[in-house]
Parts: sequence; structure tokens; C-alpha cells
Amino acid sequence: MHPSLLQDAGCPKEIPHNEKLLSLKYESLDYDNSENQLFLEEERRMSFLGFKCLEISRWVICGLIGFLTGLIACCIDIAVENLAGVKYFVVKQNIEKFTEVGGLSISLILWAVLNAAFVMVGAVIVAFFEPGAAGSGIPQIKCYLNGVKIPRVVRLKTLVVKVCGVICSVAGGLAVGKEGPMIHSGAVVAAGVSQGRSTSLKKDFKIFEYFRRDTEKRDFVSAGAAAGVSAAFGAPVGGVLFSLEEGASFWNQMLTWRIFFASMISTFTLNFFLSIYNKKPGDLSSPGLINFGRFESDVSVCGLLGALFNILNYWLTIFRIRYVHQPCLQVMEAMLVAAVTATVSFAMIYFSNDCQPLGPDQSEDYPLQLFCADGEYNSMATAFFNTPERSVRSLFHNPPGSYNPLTLSLFTLTYFFLACWTYGLTVSAGVFIPSLLIGAAWGRLFGILLASITPDGSIWADPGKYALIGAAAQLGGIVRMTLSLTVIMVEATGNVTYGLPIMLVLLTAKIVGDYFVEGLYDIHIKLQSVPFLHLEAPATSHWLTAREVMSAPVTCFNRIEKVGTIVDVLSNTSTNHNGFPVVVPVCGLILRSQLIVLLKHKVFVELARSRLTQRKLQLKDFRDAYPRFPPIQSIHISQDERECMMDLTEFMNPTPYTVPQVYTVQLWPLGEFHERFPSSQATELGRTPVSLKWLGVLMHHPKCN
Amino acid sequence: MHPSLLQDAGCPKEIPHNEKLLSLKYESLDYDNSENQLFLEEERRMSFLGFKCLEISRWVICGLIGFLTGLIACCIDIAVENLAGVKYFVVKQNIEKFTEVGGLSISLILWAVLNAAFVMVGAVIVAFFEPGAAGSGIPQIKCYLNGVKIPRVVRLKTLVVKVCGVICSVAGGLAVGKEGPMIHSGAVVAAGVSQGRSTSLKKDFKIFEYFRRDTEKRDFVSAGAAAGVSAAFGAPVGGVLFSLEEGASFWNQMLTWRIFFASMISTFTLNFFLSIYNKKPGDLSSPGLINFGRFESDVSVCGLLGALFNILNYWLTIFRIRYVHQPCLQVMEAMLVAAVTATVSFAMIYFSNDCQPLGPDQSEDYPLQLFCADGEYNSMATAFFNTPERSVRSLFHNPPGSYNPLTLSLFTLTYFFLACWTYGLTVSAGVFIPSLLIGAAWGRLFGILLASITPDGSIWADPGKYALIGAAAQLGGIVRMTLSLTVIMVEATGNVTYGLPIMLVLLTAKIVGDYFVEGLYDIHIKLQSVPFLHLEAPATSHWLTAREVMSAPVTCFNRIEKVGTIVDVLSNTSTNHNGFPVVVPVCGLILRSQLIVLLKHKVFVELARSRLTQRKLQLKDFRDAYPRFPPIQSIHISQDERECMMDLTEFMNPTPYTVPQVYTVQLWPLGEFHERFPSSQATELGRTPVSLKWLGVLMHHPKCN
Repeated sequence: MHPSLLQDAGCPKEIPHNEKLLSLKYESLDYDNSENQLFLEEERRMSFLGFKCLEISRWVICGLIGFLTGLIACCIDIAVENLAGVKYFVVKQNIEKFTEVGGLSISLILWAVLNAAFVMVGAVIVAFFEPGAAGSGIPQIKCYLNGVKIPRVVRLKTLVVKVCGVICSVAGGLAVGKEGPMIHSGAVVAAGVSQGRSTSLKKDFKIFEYFRRDTEKRDFVSAGAAAGVSAAFGAPVGGVLFSLEEGASFWNQMLTWRIFFASMISTFTLNFFLSIYNKKPGDLSSPGLINFGRFESDVSVCGLLGALFNILNYWLTIFRIRYVHQPCLQVMEAMLVAAVTATVSFAMIYFSNDCQPLGPDQSEDYPLQLFCADGEYNSMATAFFNTPERSVRSLFHNPPGSYNPLTLSLFTLTYFFLACWTYGLTVSAGVFIPSLLIGAAWGRLFGILLASITPDGSIWADPGKYALIGAAAQLGGIVRMTLSLTVIMVEATGNVTYGLPIMLVLLTAKIVGDYFVEGLYDIHIKLQSVPFLHLEAPATSHWLTAREVMSAPVTCFNRIEKVGTIVDVLSNTSTNHNGFPVVVPVCGLILRSQLIVLLKHKVFVELARSRLTQRKLQLKDFRDAYPRFPPIQSIHISQDERECMMDLTEFMNPTPYTVPQVYTVQLWPLGEFHERFPSSQATELGRTPVSLKWLGVLMHHPKCN
Repeated sequence: MHPSLLQDAGCPKEIPHNEKLLSLKYESLDYDNSENQLFLEEERRMSFLGFKCLEISRWVICGLIGFLTGLIACCIDIAVENLAGVKYFVVKQNIEKFTEVGGLSISLILWAVLNAAFVMVGAVIVAFFEPGAAGSGIPQIKCYLNGVKIPRVVRLKTLVVKVCGVICSVAGGLAVGKEGPMIHSGAVVAAGVSQGRSTSLKKDFKIFEYFRRDTEKRDFVSAGAAAGVSAAFGAPVGGVLFSLEEGASFWNQMLTWRIFFASMISTFTLNFFLSIYNKKPGDLSSPGLINFGRFESDVSVCGLLGALFNILNYWLTIFRIRYVHQPCLQVMEAMLVAAVTATVSFAMIYFSNDCQPLGPDQSEDYPLQLFCADGEYNSMATAFFNTPERSVRSLFHNPPGSYNPLTLSLFTLTYFFLACWTYGLTVSAGVFIPSLLIGAAWGRLFGILLASITPDGSIWADPGKYALIGAAAQLGGIVRMTLSLTVIMVEATGNVTYGLPIMLVLLTAKIVGDYFVEGLYDIHIKLQSVPFLHLEAPATSHWLTAREVMSAPVTCFNRIEKVGTIVDVLSNTSTNHNGFPVVVPVCGLILRSQLIVLLKHKVFVELARSRLTQRKLQLKDFRDAYPRFPPIQSIHISQDERECMMDLTEFMNPTPYTVPQVYTVQLWPLGEFHERFPSSQATELGRTPVSLKWLGVLMHHPKCN
């Protein structure tokens, strides 16, 4: 362990100016099953029927996860639509009143104040109550699915703050979407439902106790994330692939099937309730929060803009980490952005002279006439004076000629900077929709320009298709997901013929973008100093062996160990490992959390002899303590007790994953490393350039052999 | 090893009357990378650019696989359509001629002879040239993807026979589909393209040599299978999930993405060429061989019929294995089935009096008037006098009232037995379409009955929806795929709202069916005595340890071993293991195939000393010999040479997977076992009831420690 390289980034004043800094406040999930004697006994006692019941409960939980996630999505959608509707109605009335008599500055102020008010509420709850609910939550969920435990990320409080926060920020007119937070919400729902209790509410339903361990919980969380994607985009298969692409370190066939079930239920629930809300029960035409409508075919370009977005946002985030870490400052920044967004939008609309005739089908939701002739509306306003979802849909589907090129260029430019400024504010907000909006605008612009230079371009005529391709490219350039994003876009457009062009565009965007900078989520993961391991080791480090990447000497215990030694090792901050090999005379692995429970219950050899009546420790005791194990400091061990002995045999995992010292890194994809050897000893590797910085593994200990 | 339990089923006269019989003719794939010194040296020499080039070639290969698979699908489709078109045209003319004047028996004979002729060609090439091309090929591909090497399954000859055979059997009017064979064809294309050479044609393009090993080949084959599904159903995502569900033992994120690429290219190629063929370029409306058309929502029942189908087919297959194993008999049986199919169809049409008015849009392809009034057609004929694909589409989409219940019941009943009899014939043929057809017929029947008992049933009115659900249930009941089938059905119908009902139906069908008997593919795998391991061990055998399932004592070699000993061990038929631990003084694993190459090149310690100029063995020598290594008997070792020594250090894998003896089976999902320890020592386990019969693993050998 090199303290100079690994340091705690919990202190907000420290900023990671160096890529070698990784925070020690993050633990990894204990993905490896602790197959100790207690566990094996329980398994042996369990009948075939017992296993079936477990399997059925897993399905029931997944169904519940899907249902609740769909319900939450439905609530968010209805709340946003109504709040935004009221806001736009008030502002529109005001603008109409003042267009004739002059004094539009009052309208501007009204709009800015309304926006700032909404955003203030959203920012205050996030900054003061639950900072973990900031942002889209996708980076955190990505870390969790890959085996890094981010503190407080799946708490009930986070969920509540997230939901309220996203409603406020979208209604507040920020350049944000509500799709990312849905994914986080789904994950929290899953973590809560699957445990059958709420630690925050101090309520234990005494069900699903078998699932109270990291392995099972992570699996359910992946189902929750999938249900979130499914509800957000009406894309159940896309949801499954998202969970897979982002959390592929562990894979299980039955799990996929359950994830798919949760996704299906989620989109179906949302669809059902929204249909009822829209008074068209049985119509089932709104499978997702955003629905692109149906498209009837195309090819295109790439993601330099995505890379630029990421670079700008990277600098901005570093600036924020350095200077904007007071909650008050954060709230004020968010309000500032809201007011600026309103002002810029207003200015753009005010100075625009792009008037379009109002169609008979009234496809605009809040058409602004302003200085246009009667029966016409301001085209810039369809882009700015609208929720981002509706703007995207207008760009995809409005007939050719609805926007003039100047409007689109100005819109693209301003919205790009607004969205870039917005992401990373202390509000809960997603980056999907703004990215799609930017991409759709320049895609449509490109389509218009192409149509103007090809006079007979009948098949090039629909700029909406370019908008779709542009949106995919921009989003791909920013988030760098490929497989799942293709499927999500295909499902959201409902047309498989777009699959190939969208995939090619996403691939190009990813390759071009990766040449310059990482994806936005990866940047934010890195800026939070999370020890995230990618699925594969860098190709050029394939021949590194386990011996070379492990810390030495290994901190380990004897099978029967003195309590004092255990307490000392656990208290020692320089060796805060999470798992310890047990070496003499048998070889096994014991976790920090298990030791804590043992110490708390004072399972000492001497006491067992004296107190014959002492209850034998059950698996239940470990499950009840999960997941918030007390720190070692809170457990009082007297000086006498320090001299007692503890027998670890029954509690240690006698069959941990072990690898020979000569094993190369290639054989162990890093993600698997992370999940297989999570709680073992961390080390720091100076030899490789990028991702192989943090690695935990229990090696063949010489004494074990 | 118990010779009484494990015996060679290569001899066709032996039939597996006992489930404990497993054939020893099947080897497993060497999925574990042999990280020997040669390999590590090559990796070290390779630059970053070299790795990039490899990655790019993988993508290029996947693109090629997709393209060629799409092209093959296109050829099959065009050939079948034209041949069937000609056949139906001739028969129809004939029937029309004889309807008035009497003598329809001549039409019947003509029809039966035409069918039998087509089927004879198909059966002859399969029975005499390549028996491996019989059936749908899905069971074989499923085995291959899960790590069992089925001989000759991915040969060029198999592909040619398969393609010609399926054209003949579909054109010959058998109750079969062309979708299963497409999946097999895609897999063969992948195995061929990825190796950059054809052993059958003796042509080596000297490219892609790096991919000449089981690991890489299997990955490409999974892409090929996905491309096949994609081309067959126009379902690229379904294809990916099929490869995943059937071959999930190994999983890799980048691989999925490449599989998806191959699938997309495949469906796009098919779509493109079929559009050109149909003289509607740019229309791109035929993404798959079967296209259900668009559906605009539903709920329903399950798969007892599927289980019945499987049980009947199981008995039939056992009968066939026992009595019908002469190629001549097989051809005659196939011809008999073809003739009976024609006769039964004809009889059904002849005695049917279900006349329907001919619509103005002429949706029927070959309407038969027979004894109906002018302007009407025989409804039974739309079901029987048609390719199965078109019949399915008619059942889904024809307006209510197109069929009367009696027609449907009779059709379901006869087609059920015909399809059941047909599957397993020595022709290449799939079971997807017949299953869909049976399901669609009784689904529609159910829909009509339901509509008749609910008088105002406006939302229950469309029997086509019941047909879809019935088709899904029947297919699910027979093949028991769940995740991938849902996605395939959703993609083929182009409507995500059907996702939930289809999924629930498939799940129900699977649960009900599994209660009675295994899926059809699993039955056929078992009947072929393939040592197939399922992904998970049975729940009740979780606590079995590695010690209990391994054969003992382990056959192993010293690091420097006498040639005679090696030859003796390799020649000994009672220990025909495929991999051997190397134990003193280091621990490693050496494969049979490696030993064969070493013996062939006479890499003996003594010879190396005398012949100083001897070329050092390269990885290339191993790759050139792949995959058809000569048997040990073909290598001549003189009596003197037997006394020489061989140094295995450089060639053995120093880091094989090892597990402690106390490891439980639960920790190692069996599929993973199979792929991780493929070439190791096989054992027979008497303690567990079903699937844990065959297991290879290199245990912690006492001497290694």
C-alpha cells in the first residue's frame, strides 16, 4: 500500500489532479459466496421444494420491481407534464399580454424566476439532504453493477430525493432529461424490495431474508436498472442489454430472464397507467417516458461534438470539485443556470424571425406567436419553449421546412453549452435527452443542407431521419454505450430497419470519441476516484502475473486466532482490507464483516467453554447485520477479552478463489477479478499505464500449500 | 472409468436404452487458453498495433459471416419459392382440369409423386453423403456452443448438403421449416470464414491464423448462429439472445457486440437482396425469411400439446435409432412421409366443404376452387396447399370468418401428427415453422370459440391474435426457449406490446412442458448420447465436492517423460482422456493434441542434442495441425525412440484451472466446468440422478502442492 498513491478522496477539498489517486472510501461487493459451514448446513437442510420457493420469490421480487419502477416513472411523467404545462401556460399568457403593449422584459423575469424557483427546490433537497442523488445516477449504478459499493447509492432517501429532484429540474426548464434518474430509481427500488425491509424506516417484513447478501442484492439491482431503462424508453430488451453492457462482470442465464421479466412488467405498468391517465385505457401507446413515434430508412456521420462535450464537462467538473463544494454555492449555481437558461432561451426566441404557418393539426403544444403574423408561430420557440422531450419529437417529426437553418444552428450552439454547463449541477438530472436534442438539431441541419445541394433529392428529403441519426451519434459520442443504445433507439423508434445505420453511427461515434477522451460516465467515475475496473485488462498488459500485481506480504490470520490480533488488524487504518486469508492449518477466507459480527457476539473459545448455554451463531445473525455493519471502533473489547481466542473454522469460506502466482492477468478479465475477489486485499500497481490500478486477489499463499 | 456405464455409441446398432449411456466419441472444446511459453512469447512480441489489427479482423470476419449468411438465406428463400411455386402451379392446373371431368385421383398421384421426388433428392444427399446434415441442426449447434465438439458439424460439405436438403424438403411439401437449418448454416459459415482456409477444399488463404483454436472458433460460431437466427426471423436482437441463451457458458461483452454486428449485417443483406429480387429496391420490407407482418394487443394459455409432441417424437426417434439406420431405409421413410403428407392433405381438401368468398385483394397465393361455387375458394386448401410460412401468415392475418372451426380442428390434428412424424427424418428440416403452424391453428380455433361464447366481444374479435399467442405457446412447449424466443417473436411481429403476453405464454408453456418431459432439442441431444452439461448443477446436488465427482487416480505425466510412457497412455483406450496434468516438479496441463504434434515432430531430448540444427517448434505448427489432429495410431514410434525423453515444460499450460478437492459443484456452474476443464479427465458419477453424469476437471493434484 502506497499512501502517496492511494488516498481518501472523501475530503472534498482534495481534488484528483492526478489520475493515480484512487479513493479508499469505496468498498467492493462481496460477490463470491461465502461457502462456510453454516451456509453448507443450511443448504443441506433445504429441500427441493425450498429451492423452488426461493426461485419463485426471485420471480415475484422481479415482478414487483418492474411494477414499482413503472409506477414511479408514471408519477414522474405526470408531475412533470402538469408542472411544465402550468409554467408554460402562465409564461405564454404573460408574453401574449406584453407582446402588444411592450414590456417583454417582465415576461423574461417571470420565466427566469419560475425556473429558478423550481430548480432551487430541486437543488436544495439534493445539496442539503442527499448529495448522492445528484446527477443522472448512471455512473454510480454502473459502478455498483461492476462491484464497487458506492455509499448511500441504493437508500430509500436517495430515491425520494431523486424523484422529487428530477421533477423540479425538468419542470424548471434546465437542459436535462428524466431518463437517467429513472434508471437510478429502478435500482433503488430493486435494492429495497429484494431485502424485504427498510433500514431507514426501521421496518423489517421478515421476508426474503435469504437474499440479504451482496450477490443476490446486486442481481436484483441489475434487474431494477433494466426496469428503469425499460420504463424510460419503452425498451425492455434495451433495458436487459443495458444491465448487461454496464454490469457484465457477472452473467447468469436465469438472471437475464428475470431481468427481462422485470423490464416487461415495468414498461407494461407505465403504459397501462399512462393510458388510463390519458383517458384512453387499452390503447397502450406510451410504452416509455419518451416515445419517438414511428419512423418509416438512412446513413450518416459521427461524434466529435460528443468528445468536445465531454472535455468541456470534464474541466467544468474539476472546477466544481475544486471550488463549488458548499451546498449553498451549489444551490446558487443551479439557480443561476436555470435563470440563464430562461434568459438565453428568451433572447433566442425574441431575436428570431423564423415564422412558420400554424398547421391545421396543431402539433405544437405551446405555440408562441410573438411578432409573427396571425396564424403563424415562432419556430425557435418550438425548440426552446417546450420540455426537451417534446422538442426532440418535433425535430424528428415536423415536416420539412418547419425550421430554417439559422434557427437550428443557433439552437444547437446555445443548447450545447447550456447542456454541458448543466450536467454535473447538484440537481438530479439526466444527460440522455439533452444529448438527443443537440444531435437531433444538428442532424436536421445537416439534412437540410444536404437536401439543398441535391436538388432532386427525393429520398434525402426527410430531415427528420437525419435528426434521428444525428441524435444517436451525439448520444453515442457522449455516453459511449453501443449495443444497448442501438437496441434502445431501435425499440424507441419501433423500426428494425434503422438498426444497421444507428449501429454504424454509434460505433463511429464511439471510435472517434474514444480517440480523444473517455465517455462522460467514465469521466465522472474517474473524477470521483472510484476504483473502477474495466472488464478487460489493457491488451499490452496481458502477460502480467498475479505475483506482480499483488500486495505483499499478505495480512492473514490463523485458524484459531487471538482476539487482540484481530482487533488490531481490523483497527489498523493502513491495512483496511476487507477480507483476510486464514492460513494455518487450512486455507480459507474470512471477511471483515464476518469478523465484526463475531466480535460483536463475542464468539470466543474461552467464553464458549464457560457459558455452555451460549446460543450457536446462525447465518441469520449475519443476515440481520447486513448491509450496515458497525465499524470496529464501535465494538468494545476489554483487555481481558483481547487475550481470548477465536475459532474461525466454522465461519471462514474454505473454498475461496485462488490463483497461482504465475497466473497472467489476461486469464482473469479485470471485471471478474473485481467481483470474484472483491473483499480481498487491495494493491497498487505502478507498472501499467491506465486501468490496472487497483486489484484485489487472494493468491496461492505459500502457507496454504 | 466404468466401461459398463460409458460406452461408445459410434456403432449404430447400439441404442441408448439406458440414460446412463454416454458416448465417448464426443470430445469437448479446449476452451481454456493454453498459456504455455510459446504463447506467452508470441504475446510479448506482439505490439499494441498487432492487438488492434486482431480486433479489427474479428470485426471484419463477423461482417463477412453476416453477409454470407444473409446471402445463403436469400438463395434458400428464392429457390424454395420458385420450386414450390412451380409445383403448386402444376398441381393446381391438374386439379382444375380434373375437377369437372372427374378423375382427381390422378391429381393426387401427381402431387404425391412430385413431393416424393423432391424429398428423395433431399434424403439421398443427406443419408448417403452427410448424415450430419439431418434435422434442424439446432441440437448440434447447441452442443457445440456449450463446449461439446460434434464431429463434422461445421464442415463445408455439411453446409452444402444442408442447404440443398432443406430446399428439397420444403419444396417437397413436408411439414418442415427452413429456419432451423439457417441457424446451422450460419454456424458453418462462421467456422469456415474465421479459419481463413478450407480443409475440405485443401485451400489455405494464410489469413486469420491466430484464430485457429477452439476458443476463437467457438466465439465466431456463436456469431454465425446468431446471424442465422437473424436472417431466419429478421430478428437481430433475437439472434444475439439465442446465441446467449443456448451457449451462455461463456460470455464476453465485446463478443456480444460483434455478434450483434454479424446479425445486423445478416438481416440487412437478406433484406437488400430480397428487395432487389422482388423489384422493390430500397423498400427493405423483408428482414427475415418469415415475416409475420405487423400486429396492432392480448392474453392466453399453454403447452401440454408441446409436451405430447415431444413424447411422441421421443418414442419415434428411439424406434428410428433401433430399426431405421440403413441409408436406403431412411430415404424410403422420407419418401413415404412425403407421399402420405400429400395424400392426407389432398383428402382433407377433397372432403372439406368450407368454401369462402374470394376477396378482392387476392391474399391467397394458390386459391383452389374445387367444388366451391365460382368466386369462392376452398378454405382447407389455404392451410394445406401452401408453403408452411404462408399458411402461418394466413392464420395470423386473414379476417375473422376465413376459417370455420371444423376446418381448423381437422387441420390441427392432422398437421400435428404429420409434423411429429416428420421431425427426425433423414432430411434437413426445421421444427419452428410446423410448431408455429400447429399453434396458430389451435390458437385461432380457441379465439373463434371464445368469440362465439362472448357475444359482444369487440376486443376479443380478432382470432389472428389468438393464433399468434397459440403459435408462441406451441413453439415454446416444443423447444422450451424463453428469452430469445420472446424477442424473436416480438421482433418478427414488430410490436413491443405483444412482449408481455408472449413472455407469459412462453413461460407457462415451459413450466407445464418441463413438468412432463424435456424440450425437443434436449431429447435429441440425450438420444445421441452427447455428454451435454447444463449451465447449473441440480439444486439438490450443490454440496457435492470436486473430490466426489472426479475420477481417481489421475493419469498424469512427469515434466520430462519417457516417450514410451506417453505413447502407451495415449494408445490406451480405457484412459482416452484429452488432457493430462504434468506434475513433477511443476504443475501444468498438456493436451492430447499437443502431445500428438510433439510426437509427430519427434521433439525428443536426445534428438535435440544430436541434431543441433533442428528447428524449434512454433505455435504455427500447432495451428497448422488444428483442428484435425491425427490419431495416435497413425504416428510411428520405433522401439528405440520409445526410450527417448520428452521435455513438456515449454508446451504445457503452466496455469490450468484448478480447484481444491473440497470445492462444491455449486461454485462451478456445470456449463462453465465443461468449457473451463474441457480437455481434462472425464469421470462418471453415480450419485446424482440426471445431469451430473459427466464432468472433467483437473483437481489440485496432491503432488502439485
